[in-house]
Amino acid sequence: MSATRLARLTQYIQEQQFSAVAINAGPTLTYLTGLHFHLMERPVVMVFSADHEPTIILPELELAKLDHLQFPARVYAYAENPAGWGAIFYDALKDLGLSGQKVGVEPRQLRLLEYDYLRGACSNAHLVDGSAIFAALRVKKDAEEISCMRQAVKIAEEALTATLGKVAIGASEKDIAGELFLQLITHGSDISLPFSPIVAAGPNAANPHSQPSDRPLTAGDLLIVDWGASYGGYVSDLTRTFAVGEIDPLAEKIHRIVQQANSAGRAAGRPGVPCAEVDLATRRVIEEAGFGANFTHRTGHGIGMECHEDPYIRGDNQQLLAVGMAYTVEPGIYLAGINGVRIEDDVIVTADGAESLSTMSREIRGVG
Amino acid sequence: MSATRLARLTQYIQEQQFSAVAINAGPTLTYLTGLHFHLMERPVVMVFSADHEPTIILPELELAKLDHLQFPARVYAYAENPAGWGAIFYDALKDLGLSGQKVGVEPRQLRLLEYDYLRGACSNAHLVDGSAIFAALRVKKDAEEISCMRQAVKIAEEALTATLGKVAIGASEKDIAGELFLQLITHGSDISLPFSPIVAAGPNAANPHSQPSDRPLTAGDLLIVDWGASYGGYVSDLTRTFAVGEIDPLAEKIHRIVQQANSAGRAAGRPGVPCAEVDLATRRVIEEAGFGANFTHRTGHGIGMECHEDPYIRGDNQQLLAVGMAYTVEPGIYLAGINGVRIEDDVIVTADGAESLSTMSREIRGVG
Repeated sequence: MSATRLARLTQYIQEQQFSAVAINAGPTLTYLTGLHFHLMERPVVMVFSADHEPTIILPELELAKLDHLQFPARVYAYAENPAGWGAIFYDALKDLGLSGQKVGVEPRQLRLLEYDYLRGACSNAHLVDGSAIFAALRVKKDAEEISCMRQAVKIAEEALTATLGKVAIGASEKDIAGELFLQLITHGSDISLPFSPIVAAGPNAANPHSQPSDRPLTAGDLLIVDWGASYGGYVSDLTRTFAVGEIDPLAEKIHRIVQQANSAGRAAGRPGVPCAEVDLATRRVIEEAGFGANFTHRTGHGIGMECHEDPYIRGDNQQLLAVGMAYTVEPGIYLAGINGVRIEDDVIVTADGAESLSTMSREIRGVG
Repeated sequence: MSATRLARLTQYIQEQQFSAVAINAGPTLTYLTGLHFHLMERPVVMVFSADHEPTIILPELELAKLDHLQFPARVYAYAENPAGWGAIFYDALKDLGLSGQKVGVEPRQLRLLEYDYLRGACSNAHLVDGSAIFAALRVKKDAEEISCMRQAVKIAEEALTATLGKVAIGASEKDIAGELFLQLITHGSDISLPFSPIVAAGPNAANPHSQPSDRPLTAGDLLIVDWGASYGGYVSDLTRTFAVGEIDPLAEKIHRIVQQANSAGRAAGRPGVPCAEVDLATRRVIEEAGFGANFTHRTGHGIGMECHEDPYIRGDNQQLLAVGMAYTVEPGIYLAGINGVRIEDDVIVTADGAESLSTMSREIRGVG
């Protein structure tokens, strides 16, 4: 696995005329090495260049992890006292010929902590945004990755089904989120969830990033559940909206519109289509129904090792879809102070369309 | 709460001759505002200066969270298209008079993503390490914080007790970690744990950062469990070591030494003592017993909203302890390829010593 991925990385580094890339603890490092490091006060950085063996700088304390490394690497380990770390970074980088060269970094992952050590060790290198390299590396999922994502979706769907049986009027959003969390783990999610489930009912459902509160579930609420599982390092991210007790006509109407928008978004994806077109497909349905101003976010985001990654499904993104790309389709309508609806699926681009990994019913269903 | 904390921040900014600080999504922002933002592809940054109202730059999607903000702020919200974000950062910062001034940032928290937007909006400001300000702000815990930490310790202890009853020879490290995880949530931990529990038996116990594996628990193993809970945004981080079946004399010996070292470390803390002295107290016991080379890490780290924060308990750290500081005492002995022992408590500095928040027995106990 690592060998193929490293070869592709080397190819992208050369094609984009970088001399090297420097990656800190995070999903890209795990993708390339199979190793897991936490983002802590002790920096872990790997430098991959086209013409040297990979270099890794890490705490002595973490050396045992390298027993599982599948390729040779130049290893530089530092002791506990931070006063000595700068010298280790210097030693690690000094023979890589990076002076005056372009070194790609990940702005969304690299902290000033690691950036300063890199700059200190190699002040003449140009540390620049290498996002395009990392996106190219990870954006098309292979069969093994898709299999993990399928399992992450299956676990999430089973966990929500088990939770719904226990949802009752009067339960708080926090109660429901706690139960869902337990069910996710019981059904086989890795113990680091992609995110804490969003459970938002009534007026809270009008806030796309609501956090579970003590508010009790009340008849007439719409209930948004936005949740996901992790499996083998890959995540799922789904949303369904339920009716608590009797549903009123307006709520039923916006649910139907969002369901149509979700369906249009899922149908729009195929190789060669710009991301923007998927966004426009969902947005058009909602705009034509007169609720355009109430769909306040993009249609979706890429998904894989990270819950949010390339490709982003926005109206301004002209990136072309290709086989193996995975992303969410999650249109919503939010009526401030009243309620909201969101329906989200995870899809993967196939040879002739986009397959939804999630199959749970999208119809409005009653709970409580 | 926020008002007092903001007043202290302003005082530190002035004392350390900064003009402002810029903070992205993370624990310091939550400490100051009570708001929670995820570290995502959409940057959230707040700028606090001594002579302007706080400024917040965030996605429009997150605006609803500001309903709970306890103080007036200048709010700059951006839309989904990243092409417009730079201009919003510029508008937000242009009247703050930061040109040529020192602006403190958090190198362990700030990503290149936010750093580049700040630099782009205010190229003449000096963005420098403000860690000393943030450490001063958060390092001494108040009564409310200590109460949350006490609860996080209590939940962790109860969860491990419930788990131990189910530990049997033949169970894998992963089985035990999964059960412990469920018990942590069942006993009331927040659903974002401070870290995934470490369960490491036999030779795996010799690796301080081991990850739970499929290896079955075997008679004669030492079993290290390093785990913690979250409560009200504060965390616990504890370790106990158990004997699986009969314990051999060497294992019993190193456990006894580590227990003495832990005890010496807990006894060494009091106001005015340098952190280094706590480290030396544990290390001396282990060195005098002839295992100095097998204690491969610092004695501990500060703990609070983050699992690792100031003050760090290292032999080179001359920072003086003060009432309200909280840290771990976690000496260990690691025998490569054989086994290992670590015993970790969370302590808080009091007027005349250091109180351990954790009281679970530290004696060697049999399981399985």
